[in-house]
Amino acid sequence: MHAYRSHTCAALTAANVGETVRLSGWVHRVRDHGGVLFIDLRDHYGITQVIADGDSPVFAELEKVRSEWCIRIDGDVLARDASLVNPNLPTGEVEVFIRDLEVLGRAGELPLMVFGDQEYPEETRLRYRYLDLRREAMQRNMTLRSDVVASMRRRMWGQGFREYQTPIITASSPEGARDFLVPSRLHPGRFYALPQAPQQFKQLIMVSGFDKYFQIAPCFRDEDPRADRSPTDFYQLDLEMSFVTQQDVFDTIAPVLAGVFEEFGGGRKVDAPQDWPQIAYADAAKWYGTDKPDLRNPIRMQDCSEHFRGSGFAIFAKLLEQEGTEIRAIPAPTGGSRKFCDRMNAFAQKEGLPGMGYIFWRDGADGMEAAGPLAKNIGPERTEAIRQQLGLGVGDAAFFLGGKPKSFEKVAGKARDVIGAELGLTETDRFAFAWIVDFPIYERDEETGEIDFEHNPFSMPQGGMEALNGDPMAVRGFQYDLACNGYELVSGAIRNHKPEIMLKAFELAGYGADEVKARFGALFNAFHYGAPPHGGCAAGIDRIVMLLADTANIREVIMFPMNQRAEDLMMAAPSDPTSDQLMELGLRVIPRD
Amino acid sequence: MHAYRSHTCAALTAANVGETVRLSGWVHRVRDHGGVLFIDLRDHYGITQVIADGDSPVFAELEKVRSEWCIRIDGDVLARDASLVNPNLPTGEVEVFIRDLEVLGRAGELPLMVFGDQEYPEETRLRYRYLDLRREAMQRNMTLRSDVVASMRRRMWGQGFREYQTPIITASSPEGARDFLVPSRLHPGRFYALPQAPQQFKQLIMVSGFDKYFQIAPCFRDEDPRADRSPTDFYQLDLEMSFVTQQDVFDTIAPVLAGVFEEFGGGRKVDAPQDWPQIAYADAAKWYGTDKPDLRNPIRMQDCSEHFRGSGFAIFAKLLEQEGTEIRAIPAPTGGSRKFCDRMNAFAQKEGLPGMGYIFWRDGADGMEAAGPLAKNIGPERTEAIRQQLGLGVGDAAFFLGGKPKSFEKVAGKARDVIGAELGLTETDRFAFAWIVDFPIYERDEETGEIDFEHNPFSMPQGGMEALNGDPMAVRGFQYDLACNGYELVSGAIRNHKPEIMLKAFELAGYGADEVKARFGALFNAFHYGAPPHGGCAAGIDRIVMLLADTANIREVIMFPMNQRAEDLMMAAPSDPTSDQLMELGLRVIPRD
Repeated sequence: MHAYRSHTCAALTAANVGETVRLSGWVHRVRDHGGVLFIDLRDHYGITQVIADGDSPVFAELEKVRSEWCIRIDGDVLARDASLVNPNLPTGEVEVFIRDLEVLGRAGELPLMVFGDQEYPEETRLRYRYLDLRREAMQRNMTLRSDVVASMRRRMWGQGFREYQTPIITASSPEGARDFLVPSRLHPGRFYALPQAPQQFKQLIMVSGFDKYFQIAPCFRDEDPRADRSPTDFYQLDLEMSFVTQQDVFDTIAPVLAGVFEEFGGGRKVDAPQDWPQIAYADAAKWYGTDKPDLRNPIRMQDCSEHFRGSGFAIFAKLLEQEGTEIRAIPAPTGGSRKFCDRMNAFAQKEGLPGMGYIFWRDGADGMEAAGPLAKNIGPERTEAIRQQLGLGVGDAAFFLGGKPKSFEKVAGKARDVIGAELGLTETDRFAFAWIVDFPIYERDEETGEIDFEHNPFSMPQGGMEALNGDPMAVRGFQYDLACNGYELVSGAIRNHKPEIMLKAFELAGYGADEVKARFGALFNAFHYGAPPHGGCAAGIDRIVMLLADTANIREVIMFPMNQRAEDLMMAAPSDPTSDQLMELGLRVIPRD
Repeated sequence: MHAYRSHTCAALTAANVGETVRLSGWVHRVRDHGGVLFIDLRDHYGITQVIADGDSPVFAELEKVRSEWCIRIDGDVLARDASLVNPNLPTGEVEVFIRDLEVLGRAGELPLMVFGDQEYPEETRLRYRYLDLRREAMQRNMTLRSDVVASMRRRMWGQGFREYQTPIITASSPEGARDFLVPSRLHPGRFYALPQAPQQFKQLIMVSGFDKYFQIAPCFRDEDPRADRSPTDFYQLDLEMSFVTQQDVFDTIAPVLAGVFEEFGGGRKVDAPQDWPQIAYADAAKWYGTDKPDLRNPIRMQDCSEHFRGSGFAIFAKLLEQEGTEIRAIPAPTGGSRKFCDRMNAFAQKEGLPGMGYIFWRDGADGMEAAGPLAKNIGPERTEAIRQQLGLGVGDAAFFLGGKPKSFEKVAGKARDVIGAELGLTETDRFAFAWIVDFPIYERDEETGEIDFEHNPFSMPQGGMEALNGDPMAVRGFQYDLACNGYELVSGAIRNHKPEIMLKAFELAGYGADEVKARFGALFNAFHYGAPPHGGCAAGIDRIVMLLADTANIREVIMFPMNQRAEDLMMAAPSDPTSDQLMELGLRVIPRD
């Protein structure tokens, strides 16, 4: 017989009754029923009930065994009495009577219990991660993550992509976040950097003639801590293709993601790729107040400015006299009660706005009547025109926000979320996707008036050089995001592969040719040797697994995460260097005051 | 029609004749046959011949096109004349007459040619890697590497393993090489390290109850440059399993590697896993002079001391009076000529030994006769006994080395390689594998007499605590390597998962309990909470791809490698940090004299 096991703890069924077996695993739970010991023996695959009484030659030894000891037992498979069968356990028809025992690994007093659902402080969980990871939910999350990544790889291979690894110790990649630096020992005083993303490398791979690249790529950013992101690194499904248009990229990644969500979504509805809308960035802001809309929520905001211009509602009427202002309506079907409307108004105030005006429609003495101060101020005709534009009726409400869109859109988006959720309009158990397209290439700093890149500086402007010679703020890029349930899952672009357009695009953002050559030299040089048109995208793996695992905490889907102070409590990192190490690197630590 | 291509450059066959097609790719070669232009248009998939003459509306533009320009053409597929069919090209039956042309990316003067086999200095190749990578051999090596890694993943999944990612920004892992350090910004003056291997993490994953782990893992070691290794990082197929014996690990990894070598070996013979011998470390040294023997070479060395003890060959007879000495024979079938024997003797002298004694057997006047000074000195009886022991005959030779084995084994091993190769005894076109087992846990420093770990300090000693209480130098570990064609491909062990045995093992090597807790705290602590017996191994991916690609230069199988001074010439890494960066990290660069 094998030294440790003839079966896993999930393998035995009624068909094994009568066999002598060997199992190894952890003591999940011990129950002592007066002279009879019941042990739930657990391994990665499942649980088997093993038992002993005074007839077992190892009964006395077994009585010493405690939770989370790792043991090996030999025993006989017995059928359970019909009344004792556990239908929730694959092995629930049998139990194993223990004849022999070997303690493989003792356990001391446990800082956290594996059995049961007790909650522990995150510090404890991270310090004793090896115990925390034994818990059922963590085993499930980790295998889910592994299976999701494996499925992504299979699907990418299936589409003719190859995975190529790009350097991890490399040059600084100025992409907006801070680099992690790595001091060089052979070149003291000089530093490598960990890549913020393989962006430049994947583009160089295209220039090198590899048609279809992907990588499950670690990305390193020295970012300030936040609950939903790792302070050090994250993983993305990174892909790039040559000789493609934007639609080709969509047609490549959409079935991969839809497939993954179908496979691991646990039966939740997944919108089919052909139904994913393509929404212009400007429209997303207008309709949803965000560039990552949650389309499970059917509410779409609308411009109602015309109904308020010159109306009796002086606040809005005055506002509209300023240039660039607008009144935006959030329709709220079934929200037609004063109580609900007041709560939403209070929500807007808590978010820093003066409040949200509202109208709601109810059954009155003379049929349908519009209620709320706003309706009174603008009068019945304008109120009715609004109702008709928004397609609302008795029992419904509408909220109104006014001003320059930038000043209220974010809150409007949040209000849309809250309204959708509170009224039960937002579907649950569904993954709703939307492409956001036509991102502007530039944004203008409100204060300085200076122009900078809105997103990624490597995107091809729609209209090429000609567009760049016009109004920069009107230039849209072949740049896109994929939103799912209110999160950005994917970001990508068709790249700017023409050196002269690259120079011009950077020039508009205030970067001279010398700076482009210094900062993006490899890419810029490469574009002078027959660069193919190319594009791609990157999908956030941590985020995808979080959505599938239904958690908002990234540390639930990472095996050994940092805490929010960027420390690994289990491994004790970061730590003090030795003076030899510093000397070899030619560095000195500046004493802290 | 698609913006860039209706077909790849490998797709068109006689079946497409008469169609109008669109192709994109690089100008591989242009030939101007007086009014007719022939262009080999190349993409990742293949080459198609496209042509034009004065009848083409874009002929004038086409005449400007140069090597490595990236272009898009539209044209008509024509059948080639039977006499012009190129049977070496999948598209060799057709050519495309060009009707339209778009230049997608111009190319300047080329620092290296993609077409042809011209060799370039490595500096040039690395600086213009995107051109170098377009060359046929590099395209082949990179896709080979990608396919090998994909195949490994498929095979590991097929055996029920899951891939789990371990941290890249983590704590120092004192495994013998230098760490790359990463300064922490949030904790100025403290440093993370990049992992030399995921050793501790994979063991912690086992303690966490995940039964079967693998990872295509990047490993980071700040090592001094050498031709056959990367100065910064390398990749391994890393695996670990719980509740296993050494043989279980062999039975897991062997079919994966054998499968990969079968799949990508290009028809070279691959020894079947059941035929891979298990050779004790001590025997490997004796028989082959190395712990990574090349078993394509049938020569096995033998101890011939008894034949020389007290013999007329004074040098050897005297040597043997010292303790621990031995005379080792290298049989050399078909090497029986004075010319060959003298050449081998000269080889040993070049390697720093006084030389190798030899005997060779030839047809003499009275039948077989043994030649060489050694035979004369020891006389016919001893010579004949040696011949019989070694199983040699007319036309064969044997070489002899004497002294303490450590002093000559390395050269003996090299001599065995050279003899095998020069005599054509070593098979080519074969991958020959051997497990090397029973590594000693400790080695003794010849000068100081101090004991240190011979290999990995995490291995379980055979015989456990009892063995550690005896002679340390006699302790063998459950530790193993896999050798292939003279290279170490795999290294692994059954781990020491008992904290008390771990403490004892380290104590023998001079490490106190405090040091163990400080250096390996996470693992040591984890072992106190029900650690399962576990073991695994790691296979060197770069090495495997090098063997399959038949190259001795690791930079031929890495997409963007460092040069041997640990510089990335294309990306210009490492580079000077900004003073802001240094300030944020709390570091100062020590000025160099």
